[in-house]
Amino acid sequence: MEFNQMLEEKVGHINDILLLYTPDEDGRFKKICEAVSYSVKAGGKRLRPLLLQEIFRLCKGHDKYDETDIHPFMSALELIHTYSLVHDDLPAMDNDLLRRGLPTTHAKFGEDFGILAGDALLNSAYEIMLDKISTSCDMRFARAAKVIADNAGIFGMVGGQCLDVELTGKEINKDDIDFIFRYKTGALLTASLTAGGHLAGADEKVLGLLGDAGNAIGLAFQIRDDILDCIGSEEEIGKPVGSDERNNKTTYVSLYGLEKAKEDVDKYTESAKGSLKQIGENPFLFELIEYMASRTK
Amino acid sequence: MEFNQMLEEKVGHINDILLLYTPDEDGRFKKICEAVSYSVKAGGKRLRPLLLQEIFRLCKGHDKYDETDIHPFMSALELIHTYSLVHDDLPAMDNDLLRRGLPTTHAKFGEDFGILAGDALLNSAYEIMLDKISTSCDMRFARAAKVIADNAGIFGMVGGQCLDVELTGKEINKDDIDFIFRYKTGALLTASLTAGGHLAGADEKVLGLLGDAGNAIGLAFQIRDDILDCIGSEEEIGKPVGSDERNNKTTYVSLYGLEKAKEDVDKYTESAKGSLKQIGENPFLFELIEYMASRTK
Repeated sequence: MEFNQMLEEKVGHINDILLLYTPDEDGRFKKICEAVSYSVKAGGKRLRPLLLQEIFRLCKGHDKYDETDIHPFMSALELIHTYSLVHDDLPAMDNDLLRRGLPTTHAKFGEDFGILAGDALLNSAYEIMLDKISTSCDMRFARAAKVIADNAGIFGMVGGQCLDVELTGKEINKDDIDFIFRYKTGALLTASLTAGGHLAGADEKVLGLLGDAGNAIGLAFQIRDDILDCIGSEEEIGKPVGSDERNNKTTYVSLYGLEKAKEDVDKYTESAKGSLKQIGENPFLFELIEYMASRTK
Repeated sequence: MEFNQMLEEKVGHINDILLLYTPDEDGRFKKICEAVSYSVKAGGKRLRPLLLQEIFRLCKGHDKYDETDIHPFMSALELIHTYSLVHDDLPAMDNDLLRRGLPTTHAKFGEDFGILAGDALLNSAYEIMLDKISTSCDMRFARAAKVIADNAGIFGMVGGQCLDVELTGKEINKDDIDFIFRYKTGALLTASLTAGGHLAGADEKVLGLLGDAGNAIGLAFQIRDDILDCIGSEEEIGKPVGSDERNNKTTYVSLYGLEKAKEDVDKYTESAKGSLKQIGENPFLFELIEYMASRTK
């Protein structure tokens, strides 16, 4: 089967799983359920759950364990990622009214419900993981959740977002941008890999390789994002082009130039594949990592 | 020892525990650490950790287990409560600039850091609990965290807050206000009791009694809050008096009148004590519940 067709099927499957974990209610909680559901269904590449799943397979977790056991953790990653976007889009943050061609959550439901939907999404990630953890004595689940939580917090994604906000409009250097990339985007991507490893019962050596690969994938991904913001068209990426520029942001491209940025995407992508190949084989995973590095949206 | 002196000592101890779980960093994450730390240190009655601890003792948890094991859960409750206040104070929500006589987090650190500090506080509650869960095979911890997560989410505190926001400025009835109280404030207070029970290894019957008592304490607490908003002075409660009225909110007092409100606080307080007395004895806990019902701030 072609990579694109496989990707589409896998993303469809992840969307089905996400639906199971998305609240649905017609009573008093209708509006918050709608805002949460809207935020999740607005789409996205579902890269984090996809990475967790494929890493689980790379580490041969599916030979040893029930693969449905990993669904709560796949969903949690996507819910945390979604909350971060919903809050990033708020007027006090990036003030974006469109994402993936659709009104952002606060644009559709009001700023108060933008804040509350983000809160609900973040909390629900932990409700889902703790439901799994508290009904099983299997420590793999607790370790995966711990890795996800740590990488989503102050010394992870939230911290990276804070630095990004603090430095917007200021003179920033290469160290700054490396730091923001590693935390803002890199942390949760890395957690997708290491949590997948924990769920597969990986040993310390494999977890180390997954951490290295996660860092490299995160950097490649974020540099590619900056490249797309520079060269993409509004139609292609579904949000106003040059929104980074509009907000007066220094990007990887403005610091290093377009050619070096493209070279670095390739360099980090190869490095990630090198680490993962030491663990095992998963042809789809390697194609996925190349796809992430060359994506056009 | 006098109740007030015991309360002060216990709150002091909880503040010490909270300090251990409050991030401190001088490097790149300095500002978010400061915003989080400021929000936590701004004070508060620490009722949720206090309730968890005293319920743990009521259920004789301290005879069977190491009491320091409950510290992560006491802290998590307070961090979740603190995040909810930080987000409630935001301009798009209640738009409060003062709380407990001090500038609110967004007033001091900017609206963006108000949002991000709330996110960081919520996430850190789970980091702390998962750290405990993932380093122990004891399922009590997972069950306590699950109860806290469920009560903090859409079908708990966040849902209650959403209803409160949705109904502000609208004609609301007694059912509405009962619902908002049960979820917005009641859910996390109830979780403080039931999580304490889980940590003490309580059985289903005791957990049921704790749930009943938690609901009653939550109602008494929130009605008392409305009474204070009606009769208190700005100095006494440290926030502008009549802020509910300013925001055009229907309160328990405006619906039922002051006398009935006071009677109901007593009724629910007695009901809570009745449930808890079926479990065991803890004189401080019963005084605490009476203190909550008659507090002046």
